[in-house]
Amino acid sequence: MADIVVASVQLAPVLGDVEGNQALIADGVRRAAAAGAAVVVVPELASSGYVFSSAEEARAAARPAAEALAPWIEVARETGAIVAGGFAELAEDTVFNSAAIVDGTGVLAVYRKVHLWDRESLVFQAGSAPPPVVDTPVGRLGLCVCYDIEFPEFPRSLALRGADLICVPTNWPDEGRPPGERPLEVVRAMAAASSSKVFIACADRCGTERGVAWVGGSAIVADTGWLLAGPAPAPEPTLLVAACDLARARDKRLNERNDVFADRRPDLYAQAPLSE
Amino acid sequence: MADIVVASVQLAPVLGDVEGNQALIADGVRRAAAAGAAVVVVPELASSGYVFSSAEEARAAARPAAEALAPWIEVARETGAIVAGGFAELAEDTVFNSAAIVDGTGVLAVYRKVHLWDRESLVFQAGSAPPPVVDTPVGRLGLCVCYDIEFPEFPRSLALRGADLICVPTNWPDEGRPPGERPLEVVRAMAAASSSKVFIACADRCGTERGVAWVGGSAIVADTGWLLAGPAPAPEPTLLVAACDLARARDKRLNERNDVFADRRPDLYAQAPLSE
Repeated sequence: MADIVVASVQLAPVLGDVEGNQALIADGVRRAAAAGAAVVVVPELASSGYVFSSAEEARAAARPAAEALAPWIEVARETGAIVAGGFAELAEDTVFNSAAIVDGTGVLAVYRKVHLWDRESLVFQAGSAPPPVVDTPVGRLGLCVCYDIEFPEFPRSLALRGADLICVPTNWPDEGRPPGERPLEVVRAMAAASSSKVFIACADRCGTERGVAWVGGSAIVADTGWLLAGPAPAPEPTLLVAACDLARARDKRLNERNDVFADRRPDLYAQAPLSE
Repeated sequence: MADIVVASVQLAPVLGDVEGNQALIADGVRRAAAAGAAVVVVPELASSGYVFSSAEEARAAARPAAEALAPWIEVARETGAIVAGGFAELAEDTVFNSAAIVDGTGVLAVYRKVHLWDRESLVFQAGSAPPPVVDTPVGRLGLCVCYDIEFPEFPRSLALRGADLICVPTNWPDEGRPPGERPLEVVRAMAAASSSKVFIACADRCGTERGVAWVGGSAIVADTGWLLAGPAPAPEPTLLVAACDLARARDKRLNERNDVFADRRPDLYAQAPLSE
């Protein structure tokens, strides 16, 4: 494992324009690869858009994984990059808010988002399997989507399961923040990275959709918790790249006596809420 | 439960000067109470200092809980405030890095820090019990100490067990940070508060001790994750106060469809590291 360049591509999908969005994604991957990226993260639901008004509309923009991911594999083969991102998946006669990791050889993993945000539960079925950690020549890549990362157990789980870099395709709706503050989504990513000594690359979307604006909080966070790139200065199309020494994520020591994993006391951690 | 004022008292204990430090703590509690505080948090090891060179030196500054906390109960009775803070506890013929919550009636809880930082393991014995959540007339108070909060499971556990406010006595050594950045300790507290919709009050120390400088990162964080007070502008004695509507911490809903506790999927959260 050597230093690699990781990219987060912040882009503006157009609702329902699958063909156009796939071209946008391929263009983003090419630009990232031209900047040296070995791993490129694109947003949640990048090929479909997000603000569906009905399950039918979501279904119309959903595709079987093989079909949705074929153009990603093609551009991965062309560029040599690994691509992680989100798409609307048609499977089991329903629609999932899915994400995948692909390389030039094919699909490495598909993950169906388990923590659904707000109206997503009206148009998507929640996944029921833990997210993947995929071993690749550049490092072990984990995957989680948007609201997933608000559950501190989730990035922690991916790190415990060996992820060196957690790829976070996301669509963070802009809910406002105090002046001068960073998006809280980025604050949480920094905390998660530092607590588990893991790298995290978030690719957010931009482009107002049916009145919904987005944070545009794409960011690449080091295993120290400090930002290597981003947050994106504005909710506009943005390419972030950062050199990441992913081997550092294999060493969980903080000093001679402390190790963020070995020091855990899981026997003392409550797993369920107080029943009142 | 009405709005209450919470205070974090950042102060500079003098190593080994237990009597002087107890006076410093009482003075801090009085000033906080004069500012309306119903709950006052003081730093980790506030009565003893921190940078012990040997177990013997730590033992000389340690006291049985009843003795160490008597002056706290006295000032709690005088002011009507609840006091949470850290002390070196002599018990079971050893020394613990302990913290307590007291009010004017007596000791409500003692907690022995379970995650020891760096050289602490040379002078303290680690605790073996989960931290307390104490039900008081102003709300349910949880307790954790310094390095404890770097484990995302720990503030999460306290919130799951019903804490409305997590009191964090701390001594954060200053390990530097990029220009313009907040202490990462504060970033983690913000993330923990927002992820579990819980209030968090951190009281850090100041005053260089044997060459160790401190972050001085005292802060009071709302259940939203945003700062209500702090971080302290400098590692100098500082009184932070903030009105906190602790009842908000009982409502874990984010919107009509999402709830930070009900949405959890613990069956999908790994509890242990990958064995390689």
